[in-house]
Amino acid sequence: MKSLSDCTITVVGLGLMGGSLAGALRGKCKCVVGVARRQETLDFALAHGLVDEGTSDLITGVRDADVVILGTPVRVIIEQLAELAPHLREGCIVMDLGSTKSFIVEAMDRLLPAHIQPLGTHPMCGKEKSGIEVAETTLYNGCTFILTPLPRTTEATVALGRELAEAVGANPLVLEADRQDYLVGTVSHLPYLLACSLVATANATTSKDPAVWKIVAGGYRDTSRVAGSDVKMMLDILMTNQGHVLDAVHAFEAQLQALTRLIEAGDEEELCKVLSAIRAQRREMFP
Amino acid sequence: MKSLSDCTITVVGLGLMGGSLAGALRGKCKCVVGVARRQETLDFALAHGLVDEGTSDLITGVRDADVVILGTPVRVIIEQLAELAPHLREGCIVMDLGSTKSFIVEAMDRLLPAHIQPLGTHPMCGKEKSGIEVAETTLYNGCTFILTPLPRTTEATVALGRELAEAVGANPLVLEADRQDYLVGTVSHLPYLLACSLVATANATTSKDPAVWKIVAGGYRDTSRVAGSDVKMMLDILMTNQGHVLDAVHAFEAQLQALTRLIEAGDEEELCKVLSAIRAQRREMFP
Repeated sequence: MKSLSDCTITVVGLGLMGGSLAGALRGKCKCVVGVARRQETLDFALAHGLVDEGTSDLITGVRDADVVILGTPVRVIIEQLAELAPHLREGCIVMDLGSTKSFIVEAMDRLLPAHIQPLGTHPMCGKEKSGIEVAETTLYNGCTFILTPLPRTTEATVALGRELAEAVGANPLVLEADRQDYLVGTVSHLPYLLACSLVATANATTSKDPAVWKIVAGGYRDTSRVAGSDVKMMLDILMTNQGHVLDAVHAFEAQLQALTRLIEAGDEEELCKVLSAIRAQRREMFP
Repeated sequence: MKSLSDCTITVVGLGLMGGSLAGALRGKCKCVVGVARRQETLDFALAHGLVDEGTSDLITGVRDADVVILGTPVRVIIEQLAELAPHLREGCIVMDLGSTKSFIVEAMDRLLPAHIQPLGTHPMCGKEKSGIEVAETTLYNGCTFILTPLPRTTEATVALGRELAEAVGANPLVLEADRQDYLVGTVSHLPYLLACSLVATANATTSKDPAVWKIVAGGYRDTSRVAGSDVKMMLDILMTNQGHVLDAVHAFEAQLQALTRLIEAGDEEELCKVLSAIRAQRREMFP
């Protein structure tokens, strides 16, 4: 059975997620190889000790790997699976860091030869800024690291996935693809759309008043933070989780309308009851 | 002309906002008197050096004040204005910390005798937790402190309001009541309703899955933060800014629907354009 310390690990895509993971894994495995298109990214990763070696050629980068981790946007991951499949070492483990899992595990199963072990993963961390410049080796500390095994994924592969998650300070959690997509549709992708719609609303109305720039307080800043997320990454997420995302939006609209109707009607008693229950739920979530 | 250092200042309502302001003003004026209903609040304020003196009797507390600052919820402020009006010292300045200004300045004008100087204020800071236990004398540092003078408010009173804001580290900004209510309706009250609706959505759907508690990441936490705000305070705010709040909700719904339609249609080109513009707007707001 493979142990992390014996593995050569190749991280493809050295953005915030991939770059941080590479740096956190360095020293905990035999070798960390980074693959990035741009030479400046590789130079940065090497200069900051995030990788042991770097290359801009995908096939060169994955050929000798025991574990390949794809840290690119969801639909780039799917393209890269097809591209690298014939070039992997016997028994190689292929993982990814994509935020949606159904499309990816389906593609892994279809595109990877039988001797390759696939394991979908989704670490629940991030920042509103992107790129290797904001990578941090502590990014994964304390976060939940979702593992989505396929029917063909062995126990040994899941065990290595757990070891890897724990090595970077994260807590592994096994979840089936559709269930993970449903959950993150509400707790991650919906907040993104709300943040974007809030920024668009302010931009269409109050932003015309120069005073607004001086009064944007904590509530607006926090509620709009994730609107700064990388657009290509988010577009892939929305397009590969359309159904759950739209369901979440519709459920949200119904809740907002219910609150709005109480405000319109001036039904303070009911409004107070509902807002108090919501406040208690929020406190239960984040004590 | 009054100078801050000569003033006895009475802060009515020693919650997060009032308690923090009292503590920040202490030592910068002659005396800070705190008024709170509960003896434990007064004991806490005295023990933590947030006030020089404390009383649970409103009239006793305001009788000798040069400046009275009402730090209670908006509609309590309006009740207290009526109650304290006959008991104030000649030339006393009455300020408040309420988040909506139109109702309050109207009540100030109607309820306070001609010899009293009214000045509405709204400091743009806060936390999702409430109560004196979370008060901090640095809360006002760097925040914008909105001043809303009435037609009868003198230049000298506005100057003292500016001095007071600057003394606690804040940046004064003069804004007319309806304009401030319009702006905060979008940048402060709307985010509150979005946070509440998001929590209610998760509670009605994904919260039934115990795994969701492990995967709530930064996006959800930040976007829902202000749902933890004090309900009585928020209810007063919503009820005294109904028109602007409902307008803001409707503008938001239109923006969310526009995004949703693009996702439904799979119109990636347009979606990418819109999300990129929003990202740029967010970055312009918070560089």
